[in-house]
Amino acid sequence: MVQLIIANKNYSSWSLRPWLLMTALEIPFEEVKLRLDFEEGSEFKRFLAGYTPAGRVPVLVDEGFAVWETPAIVEYLAEKFPAKPIWPADAKARARARSVCAEMHAGFVALRQHFPMNIEASLLEVGRRVLASEPAVVRDVQRIVQMWTQLLDASGGPFLFGGFSNADAYFAPVCTRLRTYGVPVPPAVQAYVDRVWSLPAMQAWVREAMAEQDFLDFDEPYRSRRAG
Amino acid sequence: MVQLIIANKNYSSWSLRPWLLMTALEIPFEEVKLRLDFEEGSEFKRFLAGYTPAGRVPVLVDEGFAVWETPAIVEYLAEKFPAKPIWPADAKARARARSVCAEMHAGFVALRQHFPMNIEASLLEVGRRVLASEPAVVRDVQRIVQMWTQLLDASGGPFLFGGFSNADAYFAPVCTRLRTYGVPVPPAVQAYVDRVWSLPAMQAWVREAMAEQDFLDFDEPYRSRRAG
Repeated sequence: MVQLIIANKNYSSWSLRPWLLMTALEIPFEEVKLRLDFEEGSEFKRFLAGYTPAGRVPVLVDEGFAVWETPAIVEYLAEKFPAKPIWPADAKARARARSVCAEMHAGFVALRQHFPMNIEASLLEVGRRVLASEPAVVRDVQRIVQMWTQLLDASGGPFLFGGFSNADAYFAPVCTRLRTYGVPVPPAVQAYVDRVWSLPAMQAWVREAMAEQDFLDFDEPYRSRRAG
Repeated sequence: MVQLIIANKNYSSWSLRPWLLMTALEIPFEEVKLRLDFEEGSEFKRFLAGYTPAGRVPVLVDEGFAVWETPAIVEYLAEKFPAKPIWPADAKARARARSVCAEMHAGFVALRQHFPMNIEASLLEVGRRVLASEPAVVRDVQRIVQMWTQLLDASGGPFLFGGFSNADAYFAPVCTRLRTYGVPVPPAVQAYVDRVWSLPAMQAWVREAMAEQDFLDFDEPYRSRRAG
């Protein structure tokens, strides 16, 4: 069975993506969860150094062979489990799904900086303030709304490319951010956010994030302690 | 025939990657070159808007269907031209190639910021100054040296995974930066840089970059005019 090395479920948006993909598509794996810690020499960094010189989660380990960086993990899974609908079956839809996932991998910098994933938190006032003062965040939200609206229109839903795929796993952390920071979006987009949030696999992740009794101050620009 | 929309050959590192890949692997394409201009409403932005809502080059256009973001373009080409060695044939080598390409897609931020691609320039003094004052750039260079050394040792060369593949196309802009900014690297790494630089497809790109009579001040933090 493959292993997936991840970090805190409340904070680690990159961990959520392959975890959700594999859980929702019923690809069995063993979870190895670390406590996020970017300091050189930390237990997090030392453990990861045994698997990846890049020093970041997630990492997929297949009988000792490590695959790091989410895009590489996803393609590895798609090759290893060809019967699983990781990507859309249609070649053009598949190309489009890869385009929007690549936008997520390297982009949406302002959204990620100002709205870090924080599943346990409700930061509606922060959301209002950021949207009023950071035009780059507003532009990122506009691109998300435009992208999801077009894709849902084209596919007919319920997910971005029809059935659940890696594209939904990629944008699941964005769904949690829209929720945490109370970002207003059009009804069709909000309905999509709610569908992702309601997925059994997503609900399992959320429960485990809520149950974590960990507060990472470097990922908490807006709070001094947990709410719950 | 597919079209590839790119921008200035002297400056656009993301344009170089699929252009070099397709040229070196003899995948025929029609080049459409734009002048880089990130201003909203510019001719660059307006032309691209007809193809991609992300508004960036490169874009691959296949009979009117646009594929944007380099990772998506590469996977599209790998599916469309399965006989071309875009990725290594071995599954683990292919996974490793995708990992390091994904590192490049979203990472090496300090290297990219302080050492923008500028093929026509020779900025050896800038290189020395940056390496002495920016530890994040030094760390990026160290990771590149570690990565290439390991991959060349494992494959036996001459390229990162043996024969030329997309991994070499991805790091070709880094090769030009090491050269432009005179970054000292171990002999085996320098020999790899020289092999990439000497590829006929790379030399064709360099000639065309040199011949461009264009100076883009937003991509020129260190100069006020071209050398040649």
